[in-house]
This record gives sequence, C-alpha cells and structure tokens, in this order.
Amino acid sequence: MPKVRIDANACLYPMPMTLVGAVVENRPNFLAVAWVARVNFRPPMIGVALGKIHHTNAGIHENKAFSVNIPGKVLMEKTDYCGIVTTKTTDKSGLFEVFYGDLPKAPMIRQCPLCLECRLVQAVDLPSNTFFIGEIVSAHAEEAALTNGQPDIKKMDPFTLTMPDNLYWGVGEKLGQAWNVGKSLKSKE
Amino acid sequence: MPKVRIDANACLYPMPMTLVGAVVENRPNFLAVAWVARVNFRPPMIGVALGKIHHTNAGIHENKAFSVNIPGKVLMEKTDYCGIVTTKTTDKSGLFEVFYGDLPKAPMIRQCPLCLECRLVQAVDLPSNTFFIGEIVSAHAEEAALTNGQPDIKKMDPFTLTMPDNLYWGVGEKLGQAWNVGKSLKSKE
Repeated sequence: MPKVRIDANACLYPMPMTLVGAVVENRPNFLAVAWVARVNFRPPMIGVALGKIHHTNAGIHENKAFSVNIPGKVLMEKTDYCGIVTTKTTDKSGLFEVFYGDLPKAPMIRQCPLCLECRLVQAVDLPSNTFFIGEIVSAHAEEAALTNGQPDIKKMDPFTLTMPDNLYWGVGEKLGQAWNVGKSLKSKE
Repeated sequence: MPKVRIDANACLYPMPMTLVGAVVENRPNFLAVAWVARVNFRPPMIGVALGKIHHTNAGIHENKAFSVNIPGKVLMEKTDYCGIVTTKTTDKSGLFEVFYGDLPKAPMIRQCPLCLECRLVQAVDLPSNTFFIGEIVSAHAEEAALTNGQPDIKKMDPFTLTMPDNLYWGVGEKLGQAWNVGKSLKSKE
C-alpha cells in the first residue's frame, strides 16, 4: 500500500457527535462537539476540545462544570444547529428540555439518551483550542436506551462526524467482540 | 424521557479504533486505542489516553514521538490482538509492515489507510492514564482510500468500539451534511 501525504489537518474517522452543555451568562447553552474522548479510567474522566472562539468556554472556566450529551440521530438537525449558531446572538436554551443532576452548573438535555455531568478537573491551554478535562460525576441514561442496565448503542442510535468532508454517519453492522476476536492470532503464536 | 443513573464509567459511543505506534526498547510497537480525539485545529494536534500500565507509554515519553494509525476493518483481528497482548512478553513488530515519515521514532503501519505521525507536545498526567498530545507533523494516506485528495470513510472502512459492551461496529449510512442540515431550524428563527 503506497502512501501519499495529505493535509496534516486530517481528522480522525469517525468522531462521535456530542452536545457540550455549560451555563453561560446564567443561561444553559449547548455546543456541537466531535473532538471528545475518554481520558481516564478511574475516576472516569472525559475531555472535550473547544475552539477558543466559542462562548461556551467562558462558562466552563467560570463554573468549573460542563456536560457531555450524546444525541440520537433524531436530534441531528438540532445538534447541527448548535454548531452553526452562537449564543452571542441566538438563545439556544429553548431548543431542548434541560435538567440537572448533582452539579447546578452542568445543564443536561432530557432528549439525549445519555448525558454525562462533569466537574472540571483541568483546562489544557493549546494554541487555538482549550481541552477541558472533566470527571464524570454522574451518568444519566434514558431507560429505554438500556439493555441489562447498560447503554445499548442500537437503542441510543448516536451518529458520528467525519472531516473535512463534513458528513454525519449512522452506526453500522456489529463486527465482533473486542478483547476477543484477536485471540485467534494468539493461538497461532 | 425519564432518566436513570448508571455507572459513571459510561463510555462515549461510538469511539474510533486506532493503533498507536511508538518505539519501545528499540522496537516498533503498536497498541489498540479508542480513547483518542483531535484537540487543536492549527497546528493540527491529536491526543491519545493510554493506561499507565502500558509498555508504550515509556517509549513515547523517551522519544517524544508517536503515531496514530486508522485501521480498516480487514485489520480488526490484528488490531484487537494489539489490545490483548503486551510487548513485555510478545513482539508485535512483525504483525505489520512498518514505515517512517519525518520522525524516526514514530513507526507507522503500511496496511492502514490513514497514518498520522506526531511530535509529542504535552503529556497530561491523570490518575490512571496519561493523555499524550501530539502535533500531527504529517498525514500519510493510502491513495486508493482518497476521493478528490481527501480520505473517504467508505474506502477507508474504519471501525468503532463501544464500551462496556466491548463491541466493534462498522460505519453505517450517510445521514447528512454537517454545518448544513441545521440550517432548516435557522430559517424558523
């Protein structure tokens, strides 16, 4: 497989679409974010990379709290809208039914099948983005999206983003069991 | 949608599967990693969260370089194998054809449709993991996986991981154009 060099701003494929919630100027606000990853196992932590131009950043810095909400694809238009308009000019607080868990400044979205409320642990300052690392204080799931008490991806029906083609994708077929399908190679050692 | 609290160690759905490459004890080594995200736009940066128990970490700290390789699903068994066995007891260097770009200590995988070579910028020390942030020095793509010079997800054919069900998933149907499908709501303002 010969390789060609492409623009180094190549994005990871595929990235999970989320809505990051924060209280900004005393209003709940939500921003569409795909640059997000789990970063620590115990205690559970998650990180979100937000461009410094975003209004949300000031709210997270101020309140030391945010949420990560996983929308189902029925929320694709509203999620996309939250990536197009800014709170500076548009009030997004009426888009969703907002609820709170343990943290009074981590607004979550009732319509999302999985919502993680996070206490800010560290804000990593990078050239154009800030990477906010939060401890997941509580995870709130839609009961109908669970199977045996665990989130079921087919019931949650999340979607992913690819860049720079800027396309949303559904979740495809089940391919295999992790920490298992590779055992066939182990037996050949 | 009433919510129930679940284990806060809920993982993001779905997470992109990658193979993180590093030179460990003078040998190229690859670890299966799904806790990965873009973290900065310009210069392009990507972060990977590795449990501190992994052998790979010492190599990244020592050489200040690593790679992020996106395997197609034809590499699912080998990728999974790299998450099961440790370099401490098993030499994984023969699993793949290794190549190098600009960084002599960022081994990449010829069989992967997209490979990102990274210069370590910062290692964020967290309780059980280290989050390695790297600047993407070059992106190397398989020519057959490009459309109009950009990576084409359907040609790359990557796969994702969900936890704690520990399942691999393919990429599903195309749902819509990002920064566009939400415009329908904008017109209703």
